Amino acid sequence: MPKIHQEVVDHMMENDFFSQWLGIEVLEIKEGYSRIKMTVRKEMVNGFGIVHGGIPFSLADSAFAFACNNRNNLSVALDTSINFIKPVHVGDILTAEAIEIHNGRSTGLYHITITNQAEHSVALFKGLCFRTDRKLIGKDGL
Amino acid sequence: MPKIHQEVVDHMMENDFFSQWLGIEVLEIKEGYSRIKMTVRKEMVNGFGIVHGGIPFSLADSAFAFACNNRNNLSVALDTSINFIKPVHVGDILTAEAIEIHNGRSTGLYHITITNQAEHSVALFKGLCFRTDRKLIGKDGL
Amino acid sequence: MPKIHQEVVDHMMENDFFSQWLGIEVLEIKEGYSRIKMTVRKEMVNGFGIVHGGIPFSLADSAFAFACNNRNNLSVALDTSINFIKPVHVGDILTAEAIEIHNGRSTGLYHITITNQAEHSVALFKGLCFRTDRKLIGKDGL
Amino acid sequence: MPKIHQEVVDHMMENDFFSQWLGIEVLEIKEGYSRIKMTVRKEMVNGFGIVHGGIPFSLADSAFAFACNNRNNLSVALDTSINFIKPVHVGDILTAEAIEIHNGRSTGLYHITITNQAEHSVALFKGLCFRTDRKLIGKDGL
Repeated sequence: MPKIHQEVVDHMMENDFFSQWLGIEVLEIKEGYSRIKMTVRKEMVNGFGIVHGGIPFSLADSAFAFACNNRNNLSVALDTSINFIKPVHVGDILTAEAIEIHNGRSTGLYHITITNQAEHSVALFKGLCFRTDRKLIGKDGL
Repeated sequence: MPKIHQEVVDHMMENDFFSQWLGIEVLEIKEGYSRIKMTVRKEMVNGFGIVHGGIPFSLADSAFAFACNNRNNLSVALDTSINFIKPVHVGDILTAEAIEIHNGRSTGLYHITITNQAEHSVALFKGLCFRTDRKLIGKDGL
Repeated sequence: MPKIHQEVVDHMMENDFFSQWLGIEVLEIKEGYSRIKMTVRKEMVNGFGIVHGGIPFSLADSAFAFACNNRNNLSVALDTSINFIKPVHVGDILTAEAIEIHNGRSTGLYHITITNQAEHSVALFKGLCFRTDRKLIGKDGL
Repeated sequence: MPKIHQEVVDHMMENDFFSQWLGIEVLEIKEGYSRIKMTVRKEMVNGFGIVHGGIPFSLADSAFAFACNNRNNLSVALDTSINFIKPVHVGDILTAEAIEIHNGRSTGLYHITITNQAEHSVALFKGLCFRTDRKLIGKDGL
C-alpha cells in the first residue's frame, strides 16, 4: 500500500482547521518525511512588527505531525523545541522540511528546518513523539 | 516609573495582531512576570480534532514576550521548548503564567505554565531570550 | 511499603559507579522526588578552568533518575535539557533537587534545580522519561 | 592563520582535565567543526549497569566547546539538550561530530551526533552558545 503516507496526511489536513488558517500547502510526503509551505500574512505579526514566534513553530509542528504520523500509527508530541535564527516578515514564504532522525518502537525523533524564500534558515525545530499503536485511517482508525 | 511594565505590554499588545487573533487577554503584569488567558476556538484544532500544538505554544510565547520585555529592554527569543502534558479541547480556557527564573545581563530564562479551566497543567514552556539594550517605548524606543 | 522509594535509590546508588566517582551523596528521597549533593574537584574542570558542563548535567541526571525511578517502575530518559546560569568552580558544593512536574502513565516530567553553597542557582535541568513497567527491585526486578 | 582552529582546541584540551579523564581523543578540527572520540570504561555506568547519561552528554559538550570556540572567540554554553536513542555499554567506542548550524554575531547553534562503533546513533545533542568577543589564545587571550 505505497500511497498510505499521502492518504494519512490528506486525511489529517482535511480536518486540521488551524493548518488551513495558516495557509499550509503540502508539497511532498514520504515515509517519515514531509515538506510543506505557507505565506506569512499581516495578522501573524507580534508586538514588534515581525512575525510571532508561534507562526514558525506552528508550521514546524504541522510538518512534524505529517511526518511522524504518516505510517498510519497515531503519534502524539511529547517535547518540542525551536531555535529562532532570523526574523520572519509579512510576505515571506516559509518552507518546513521534516526529517526522521530516529524511528523507535515507542518514540520517534524529528528535525524540522524552516527556510524562507531566499533559502535562509529562519528556525530549527526538534520534535519527540510517542507512538500509540492506534491507526489514523482504515479499520480501527479514528 | 512604576507603571512602565504595564505600559510596555499595552504597547506590545496593541500591535500584536496574532495575539489579538488568539483572543489573548492580559490578566496581570509585574516586573519580569505576566499572566494572560484565551479561550480555544474551533479554527484552532489539528487533524485529530484536538487543539493544534501551535496554539498553547503561541499563548506561552506571548506570555514569555510580555514578561521578558517589560523592563523596556527589547529582548528576542533564542530557544524555546514546550512539553505537552494533556490534550486541549475547543472551548477550553487556557491561562499562561510566565515566571522569571534568571534575569542576566545578556540573557533571561523563563518558565511558563499553561493551565486549563479545571486548573490542570496542560503544557510547560521554557524560554531563553537575548537582551538587546534597545528600548521598546519612550526616547530611542521602536 | 513506605520505604520502597529509599530502597530503590539505595539499590541504584550501589551500582552507579559514575555517581560514586562524582562523589554524590543522597540527602533526601520521597515519592517522585530527590535531593542530592556533591563537591566539585579539580579533575572536573574544562579548558577554561571552570567546571565542565558535563558535571552539573551528570549531577542533575542522577537526581532525575533517583526521582523518576523511585516508585520501582524502571524509567529511561528520553529528552533532557540544561540551561547554564552561573559558572561553577573547583570546591563548590552543588545541591540538585528534582521535582516531579508530571507523573503520566507512559512518561514523566521533572525539573531539577542546581544550587551552589551560596544558594545561587547555577543550572536548571528538565528531564522527560519513558516508563517501562519493569521493576528495579524485588520479584521481576533487574 | 589557517591553523588557529587546531591551536585553540589544543590549548583547550591541555587544560581540560575532565575531557582527559573521559579519555577524549581529538580526531578532526575545522572552522566551526569538531570530531572527537572516547572509549567507555567501567566507572562510567549508572545504577542499571548501562552508561550514565552524563557520559554521552559530556562527550557531546566537549565536541560542542571545541567547535564553537575554535575561531578564537570565547563562547559560553547557554542551553543544551540531548536525546538518548540507544543505550551505551562498557567498551563502546563513541564518536561525537559537531556541526555548525548557525554562526551568529552574538550566538551560535550546533548539532552534535554521537555514534557507536557499529555506526549507530546513540544520542543527539543541540547546543546554543553566547559569543563573548574575548580571545582564548594570543594577545588578550585568557
